[in-house]
Amino acid sequence: MAEATAELIGGIEAGGTKFVCAVADPSTGRLIERTSSDDPAFLTGKTEEDRGRLLGNVVEWLRSRPGRLTALGIGAFGPLNLRTGTITTTPKPGWQGFPLRRHLQAAFPSAKVELDTDVNAAARGEQRWGRGQGCSDFLYITLGTGIGAGAVINGNLLHGLIHPEMGHMRLPRIAGDPFPGICARHGDCWEGLCSGPAIEARAGRKAGGIPAEDPAWTYAVRYNACAIANLICVLSPRKVIVGGSGRKAGGLGEEAFFHRLREEVQAALAGYIAAPELGEGIGGYIVPPGLGDDAGVRGAVALAMDALR
Amino acid sequence: MAEATAELIGGIEAGGTKFVCAVADPSTGRLIERTSSDDPAFLTGKTEEDRGRLLGNVVEWLRSRPGRLTALGIGAFGPLNLRTGTITTTPKPGWQGFPLRRHLQAAFPSAKVELDTDVNAAARGEQRWGRGQGCSDFLYITLGTGIGAGAVINGNLLHGLIHPEMGHMRLPRIAGDPFPGICARHGDCWEGLCSGPAIEARAGRKAGGIPAEDPAWTYAVRYNACAIANLICVLSPRKVIVGGSGRKAGGLGEEAFFHRLREEVQAALAGYIAAPELGEGIGGYIVPPGLGDDAGVRGAVALAMDALR
Repeated sequence: MAEATAELIGGIEAGGTKFVCAVADPSTGRLIERTSSDDPAFLTGKTEEDRGRLLGNVVEWLRSRPGRLTALGIGAFGPLNLRTGTITTTPKPGWQGFPLRRHLQAAFPSAKVELDTDVNAAARGEQRWGRGQGCSDFLYITLGTGIGAGAVINGNLLHGLIHPEMGHMRLPRIAGDPFPGICARHGDCWEGLCSGPAIEARAGRKAGGIPAEDPAWTYAVRYNACAIANLICVLSPRKVIVGGSGRKAGGLGEEAFFHRLREEVQAALAGYIAAPELGEGIGGYIVPPGLGDDAGVRGAVALAMDALR
Repeated sequence: MAEATAELIGGIEAGGTKFVCAVADPSTGRLIERTSSDDPAFLTGKTEEDRGRLLGNVVEWLRSRPGRLTALGIGAFGPLNLRTGTITTTPKPGWQGFPLRRHLQAAFPSAKVELDTDVNAAARGEQRWGRGQGCSDFLYITLGTGIGAGAVINGNLLHGLIHPEMGHMRLPRIAGDPFPGICARHGDCWEGLCSGPAIEARAGRKAGGIPAEDPAWTYAVRYNACAIANLICVLSPRKVIVGGSGRKAGGLGEEAFFHRLREEVQAALAGYIAAPELGEGIGGYIVPPGLGDDAGVRGAVALAMDALR
């Protein structure tokens, strides 16, 4: 444990379902202490009251750590306005227009505060400590309550006009599939077809209880593969890291999910892009995160380290 | 005109239908002389014989210019292996596996030779002299015999594993549309639905003769808009430049095409991405190239200037 006078950096994985907080060593980013992702005190909620309660718990937890916080990284659900540090068009009423960065900066006035999207943070974490190490161009996808992706291009995170919202890409529908999708804005965009709640809505039960032979997995694998093939056409990544709890694919299982996903990506590309990584090397090309379920919170810590530079 | 002893740089827009060559001032990139895009001596062709004849004409033309070629930029159809400078899986038999960069380097041994995709070259030209000036993140799309796009991200061209092949992204089909698409690999990918030959196959006549009210334009605008909305979700560009002869939209006309395209992109995004550029500012966001039909050849000249740095 760090001394009470030690310097610490903090990371917040601010997810649409829950927040995970951690403090880490400023020089190495090694985690010193973290909250549990099962702690009900850190559920995101939807209302203004939920938000106030949650952020109170976050600030209290960080303030109670034995050390002075010099930097705080936040990887947040969105969409975000990164210029103002505000959450914008989220369907959660209590979070719409909320200035998350300013709020946390006010709580920790002497800390440098860095905000980015949850998936950009996770991509940064994988770049620093995971499967993106030494890779100039890669993609980090999260399959979860929502779907999103962060991209590292020429060694740097892609932001652009606002930030990518890759989960809202539209996909061709599989012939005969009657499922309308659940995205409030777009219906059957990638997220509307393949997020955790979408798969559960299609199967009529929780993901953990959907058996391997349920067609819901066939649809999920094929739509995810089509989306990834599209992203390969657009971004030409050198690696595709697929994280988020959705990669565990409930009753199908993570190993079978990745095996089928890789085959379907190859089928969708139909050999057009000539690269060994997309042929025999596909097993090292579409991979789970090196940081596993910690990609998000460690990514937030990586943002804090960036803020100190 | 340059003196016979002057230094020149060369640019080759190596398109799938025709090549356009130019020589330019090495310090400013100003065009000094160019071939006509209507010259039958510069048609690309498909066979090995076509290739030999064309490249002979290209080399002869460049050698006959009054000056010494110090650098040569080539923006080429593909797919390309940029590491080896080779054209890879093209459907043109005479060009498959052809080492274009090595061939031209051998013809001009003292010149620095730079090869990139046609759309990356055009993006570089727009960045230097056109509508990408001062813009850190933008997209250059070409609608023509094929469809492709180049991206500038954080000020640099995106290459990644090989290079983007954005035209081969799959799109949701419009309900009731019976057209199967014409892409030899993917059928109804973006290029299979919206390239010049695809629009002509759907309408059963040449693009110039397809009247404004023909449904072929409605389909083309809507599929192009869906593709651009997807690219906005993935890349978050600050500007989308749409070039290529397809933007002129035959009997519909360029102005009507852009007007309808912008409206359909907004409809596809459904207000999810909150940015004035995608609202009231859409007229300055989705735009034709500043360099017009010269984006390709001037882009190749820009690559030659890069090679000299």
